[in-house]
Amino acid sequence: MKIVILGSGNVAYHLAKAFKEKNIAVSQIFGRNENDLKEISEKFNIPFSTTELLDADFYLIAVNDDAVATISKQITKENCVVAHTSGSLPKEILEGKFRKASFYPLQTFSKSKELKYSEIPFFVEAENENDLKTLENLASKISENVMKSDYEKRKYIHLTAVFACNFVNHLFARAKEISDSQQIPFQYFLPLIKETTSKINTIDPKLAQTGPAIRNDEKILQLHEALINDEEHLKIYKVMNESIKKMYEL
Amino acid sequence: MKIVILGSGNVAYHLAKAFKEKNIAVSQIFGRNENDLKEISEKFNIPFSTTELLDADFYLIAVNDDAVATISKQITKENCVVAHTSGSLPKEILEGKFRKASFYPLQTFSKSKELKYSEIPFFVEAENENDLKTLENLASKISENVMKSDYEKRKYIHLTAVFACNFVNHLFARAKEISDSQQIPFQYFLPLIKETTSKINTIDPKLAQTGPAIRNDEKILQLHEALINDEEHLKIYKVMNESIKKMYEL
Repeated sequence: MKIVILGSGNVAYHLAKAFKEKNIAVSQIFGRNENDLKEISEKFNIPFSTTELLDADFYLIAVNDDAVATISKQITKENCVVAHTSGSLPKEILEGKFRKASFYPLQTFSKSKELKYSEIPFFVEAENENDLKTLENLASKISENVMKSDYEKRKYIHLTAVFACNFVNHLFARAKEISDSQQIPFQYFLPLIKETTSKINTIDPKLAQTGPAIRNDEKILQLHEALINDEEHLKIYKVMNESIKKMYEL
Repeated sequence: MKIVILGSGNVAYHLAKAFKEKNIAVSQIFGRNENDLKEISEKFNIPFSTTELLDADFYLIAVNDDAVATISKQITKENCVVAHTSGSLPKEILEGKFRKASFYPLQTFSKSKELKYSEIPFFVEAENENDLKTLENLASKISENVMKSDYEKRKYIHLTAVFACNFVNHLFARAKEISDSQQIPFQYFLPLIKETTSKINTIDPKLAQTGPAIRNDEKILQLHEALINDEEHLKIYKVMNESIKKMYEL
């Protein structure tokens, strides 16, 4: 099967790397950003182009959600499968006469951070059973955790991931602003953060909650509000505490 | 040095366990909740009482913040050190003629979750250099990470911890509500959550941010808002996305 990856961002980079690690040949990496394409091309020994899209059996579109439809139009071939990697788009967003599919890895990708691809859940969807099997087989070479998922389910998977990953990382970034402002090394908090995450492998997060809000400790909540001197921090502080109190009916 | 622990909650439990592991004798565990005291007493072979506080050199108060002052009044001895374990209270909250101190472990404690005590940062504070050294020595037997910290610094450490731990756990709990509502196993998200946390050991969280808000992807943000059918989820969703956009000036 001839594979072409479209895109040169974090997801494209890691998929190219994951295929390379499993000796799955990628015929081309295609996109607009020549510098990023060149980097992937050189690292994983894949030809790249910004102008001529190669003929392939499987085109994997790993670009920002708002660019998926546009880039899909460049694929004029009909007898092939085209999948995007977005959690929040239906496969029908793809524009062309090819067979449409979805190939969604549930993970957060940064180029500079290595990953164990075998642990990443992959959710695949296709127009027919044959294509589905092809995608499942391909994903199974990378990961031990491959599942079928239609768009209805996938969009909720992505929404959950936004809460459990994107927002969590933002809390880390905001927390670091507070510790930085007091010359407290953020490193002090890494064991706490590690434990907070490790805990939920064995305890339901609802049962693992600690902190002043679940103790309904108004004095500490007021002290913290007085310490906070940033509007965004205060908004987050209030909304999160209110939400904790509501969850436990305090 | 004769040590008595006051309290029988998560922190008292783990401190008793940590002392036991290092063969540091605890003379008594004292408090109100007989069942919890009994559990700690039996597990770590420490006598307990709900009525008669033993004579000691060091009293360690590990109770909820709003109970610290009250329970400290029961210590009538003068020539001794009394420390509380709160991140958000000054040592002066303690009421008595003894020498006041703080012994703050920066970690989230659940009885059912085992911990590596050696990794936990301990922040200690005392009235004089001698007591400070005693507390530093004691904490150093448990942890490799013992620091001095006054109340001004400690309260910001605790505030940072609320963002980086308590709120993060609450996001996990809210995320699980979403996945539960769609019969999506929360287990799928554990590799993502692990990676989100692991990432910030090597990348500044501000640089590690991913997701629709930092891409300023209004279509996905609107899709998600339409999917959310819970008022608290929606409030969190909006505040976090607004905060992300402000941080990156989008």
